Amino acid sequence: MKRKGILFIISAPSGSGKTTLCNKLVDSLKDLNRSISMTTRPPRSGERDGIDYIFIEKEEFLKRKKKNEFLEWARVFDEYYGTPKKYITHLISKGQDVVLSIDVQGAMKTRKLKTRAVYIFIMPPSMSQLKERLISRSTDTKKAIAKRLGIAKKELSYLSKYDYVVVNDVLASALENLRSIVIAERCRTGRR
Amino acid sequence: MKRKGILFIISAPSGSGKTTLCNKLVDSLKDLNRSISMTTRPPRSGERDGIDYIFIEKEEFLKRKKKNEFLEWARVFDEYYGTPKKYITHLISKGQDVVLSIDVQGAMKTRKLKTRAVYIFIMPPSMSQLKERLISRSTDTKKAIAKRLGIAKKELSYLSKYDYVVVNDVLASALENLRSIVIAERCRTGRR
Repeated sequence: MKRKGILFIISAPSGSGKTTLCNKLVDSLKDLNRSISMTTRPPRSGERDGIDYIFIEKEEFLKRKKKNEFLEWARVFDEYYGTPKKYITHLISKGQDVVLSIDVQGAMKTRKLKTRAVYIFIMPPSMSQLKERLISRSTDTKKAIAKRLGIAKKELSYLSKYDYVVVNDVLASALENLRSIVIAERCRTGRR
Repeated sequence: MKRKGILFIISAPSGSGKTTLCNKLVDSLKDLNRSISMTTRPPRSGERDGIDYIFIEKEEFLKRKKKNEFLEWARVFDEYYGTPKKYITHLISKGQDVVLSIDVQGAMKTRKLKTRAVYIFIMPPSMSQLKERLISRSTDTKKAIAKRLGIAKKELSYLSKYDYVVVNDVLASALENLRSIVIAERCRTGRR
């Protein structure tokens, strides 16, 4: 009997290295797919439309939101982010696992919907390291970095709502931990 | 804050390759220790006293049993097997994880005691492969093999009482699954 796919919801304060980790995770395991979010924010350098995000206009986003096409959506820094439902449910029904990388706000919304998922929190090794990373990324102004750090502190308080926590100290070991969580969840007796 | 150690209870029908897997598992991860059982059965070829088992006389076993020194004990094929409590609780309190490899009968006893543990079932790929393995091991008579297969069938019906199941088809992938379960359990938010 083929099992249903598993939805893995991964959150992290911005600057925790979530995107790199999730990409490496999906590349390293079979039958694991990345959910692609829609956003109205402009692409950052290197981001590819349809792969990293689906970049759409605000008007288009609001139209889809009205049609209830999103599993969850959020407004962050005056831009919209949303997770299209259809693609995920299609994969899950085919027995494929899906990694959905969303912020804490979004994850808490899916929890309220009683979405059956495994919740993983990626943690920066410390607040000071998080600050360093945000500065070295140099995509944000000083003010935006301060805002992000404030949000990060608040997000950490939601840790207990997650099933697992992975500290992103050394990339290789954080990746091994993430991989292990996916593999272990596939071995759960309840899934068979 | 240092977390408490985790107790992993691993069961498998005899002939599923449990011993090899557990040894490799413990060798491959830090802070993971094997609980050593006491038994009254004679050592099989290659088994070392104090490492694979602690081999003791029946009289000594029954004395310890009376003093309630075993977490669980069982009588299998007219021999006694028991898990000494002290060593495990000592390691757990120091934040060390422990792998306890016991049969289904023993695992169900620890469950009844509400022992906090992660329960893992190792499954042979099929009953016919299990039979082949028991024959090739050539430590048992035909009659003993038939008896073991009957027990194995009954044991499989307890699968749902376990948290995880690992099919021991290819050794390397079964080992990766086991390792992943240990690593993932260490990442659980409840453990911190």
